[in-house]
Amino acid sequence: MSAFVYRTPVRFADVDHAGIVYYPVFFDYFHQTFEEFFRERLGADAYVKLLDEDRIGFPAVASSCEYKAPLRFGESVEIEMSAERIGTKSITFRYCAYRIRESESERVLSAEGQVTVAVVDLAKFAATPVPEALRGLFATIA
Amino acid sequence: MSAFVYRTPVRFADVDHAGIVYYPVFFDYFHQTFEEFFRERLGADAYVKLLDEDRIGFPAVASSCEYKAPLRFGESVEIEMSAERIGTKSITFRYCAYRIRESESERVLSAEGQVTVAVVDLAKFAATPVPEALRGLFATIA
Amino acid sequence: MSAFVYRTPVRFADVDHAGIVYYPVFFDYFHQTFEEFFRERLGADAYVKLLDEDRIGFPAVASSCEYKAPLRFGESVEIEMSAERIGTKSITFRYCAYRIRESESERVLSAEGQVTVAVVDLAKFAATPVPEALRGLFATIA
Amino acid sequence: MSAFVYRTPVRFADVDHAGIVYYPVFFDYFHQTFEEFFRERLGADAYVKLLDEDRIGFPAVASSCEYKAPLRFGESVEIEMSAERIGTKSITFRYCAYRIRESESERVLSAEGQVTVAVVDLAKFAATPVPEALRGLFATIA
Repeated sequence: MSAFVYRTPVRFADVDHAGIVYYPVFFDYFHQTFEEFFRERLGADAYVKLLDEDRIGFPAVASSCEYKAPLRFGESVEIEMSAERIGTKSITFRYCAYRIRESESERVLSAEGQVTVAVVDLAKFAATPVPEALRGLFATIA
Repeated sequence: MSAFVYRTPVRFADVDHAGIVYYPVFFDYFHQTFEEFFRERLGADAYVKLLDEDRIGFPAVASSCEYKAPLRFGESVEIEMSAERIGTKSITFRYCAYRIRESESERVLSAEGQVTVAVVDLAKFAATPVPEALRGLFATIA
Repeated sequence: MSAFVYRTPVRFADVDHAGIVYYPVFFDYFHQTFEEFFRERLGADAYVKLLDEDRIGFPAVASSCEYKAPLRFGESVEIEMSAERIGTKSITFRYCAYRIRESESERVLSAEGQVTVAVVDLAKFAATPVPEALRGLFATIA
Repeated sequence: MSAFVYRTPVRFADVDHAGIVYYPVFFDYFHQTFEEFFRERLGADAYVKLLDEDRIGFPAVASSCEYKAPLRFGESVEIEMSAERIGTKSITFRYCAYRIRESESERVLSAEGQVTVAVVDLAKFAATPVPEALRGLFATIA
């Protein structure tokens, strides 16, 4: 039972005119982490098969983020993802984003967010119970 | 005392593999609305002057969104922005995003979010009181 | 026979760490212009119907751009789109992007690009002749 | 003398309404490769120091791409970067993007592009000779 970790450099285009990572980009980092979780645990095309063959999707129903310390180009971000609540037809993921700097020995919490997704039958765009196999998968990071 | 309204078509690249607007893009719509508010009320380069000459910025300290109905390419989105709380050194904006479809006579609530920004002296990256002129500006949509 | 014109402010997130519009974003401006052309000439959902009902699409087969003067936040960009070559199964569009500044009385050429698209039957993802109605539409900006 | 290689999964939001990678995103892949080249060869903050301390930048003056085979979500892309021409004050990089599929034993050429950058003194935004150290660095992929 431990968080899944994904790390990426801040990209040249992730920053805005103020020179810090544009705040919506943090949600993009969260989703990249979600994609990497599937890739690492189930293989490179597991998520797309779930979507396109099983027709199961996870649209966000709620998202939130608190920003603690800005990120800049030249730094990296390490995101920890955990499953905070595995409900019947929805799941809440928690994401902690840490700033990694070459010149700092310890990482610093940059942002902390939550994304609640519905489990949806994409053919009908209607909520459906979390499939058993996925329930087990998400339980490993609960 | 009424909301500021901004409307934009959903763009070809705003959608994700599931065919609906990628949920982080809603925060981008919110920020575009914020930019348009400044443009319409104070002129095209008012916001950049505030940032670059007065060195006042508005980094997000918290953001949240609830997603009610998905948006797709071919639709437009109308965003209403209001100032929910004008504090001493921070402001909370509320954004309601409505879906506009050619075939529907009434718009449908697609998402509802809040973004709290700190008012920051960009030279020091430290919180600073909301300048009087801006307090008055935001009061018009409170 | 004249170019179609679309104008948009440079967005807060369009710039990169160097403070100028990230060069791939110009191609995004070009595509937005293409979308607006359809919207203005044929209505808000004409392009999506072409894609989803008629199953005709326009994937890019070649793109190029020359950058003349950087764009910054606080400026706007005016894009002129024309049809440079209307072939049997492909079309080449030309885009000229001009910088608009509050303090300048004349616009300045910022970038000039070309995008060649194939006309494709999306069901087979195979090239198909340009439909007559579209040929006429594009001829108005040839 | 061999190309630098960078690989990334196609992201959920990289595709457009047609379900294939939005053509401007290929230029973003090219720039990510450029960033990774600096990171791998000189360290995580070498590029930002070049920009912010040495005030040397590489704005694009020309870019082009030919698209051969579409990329979709669930696939990865492998980009090979080489220095095609190292001039006095500008450099032309060549990027070949290959599609990687789980079910295919061989990669397929998806797109091939070129980006010419000026070497610029960012303080004056004026062209400047390629610094010797960088000339040597780029020569390793010439």
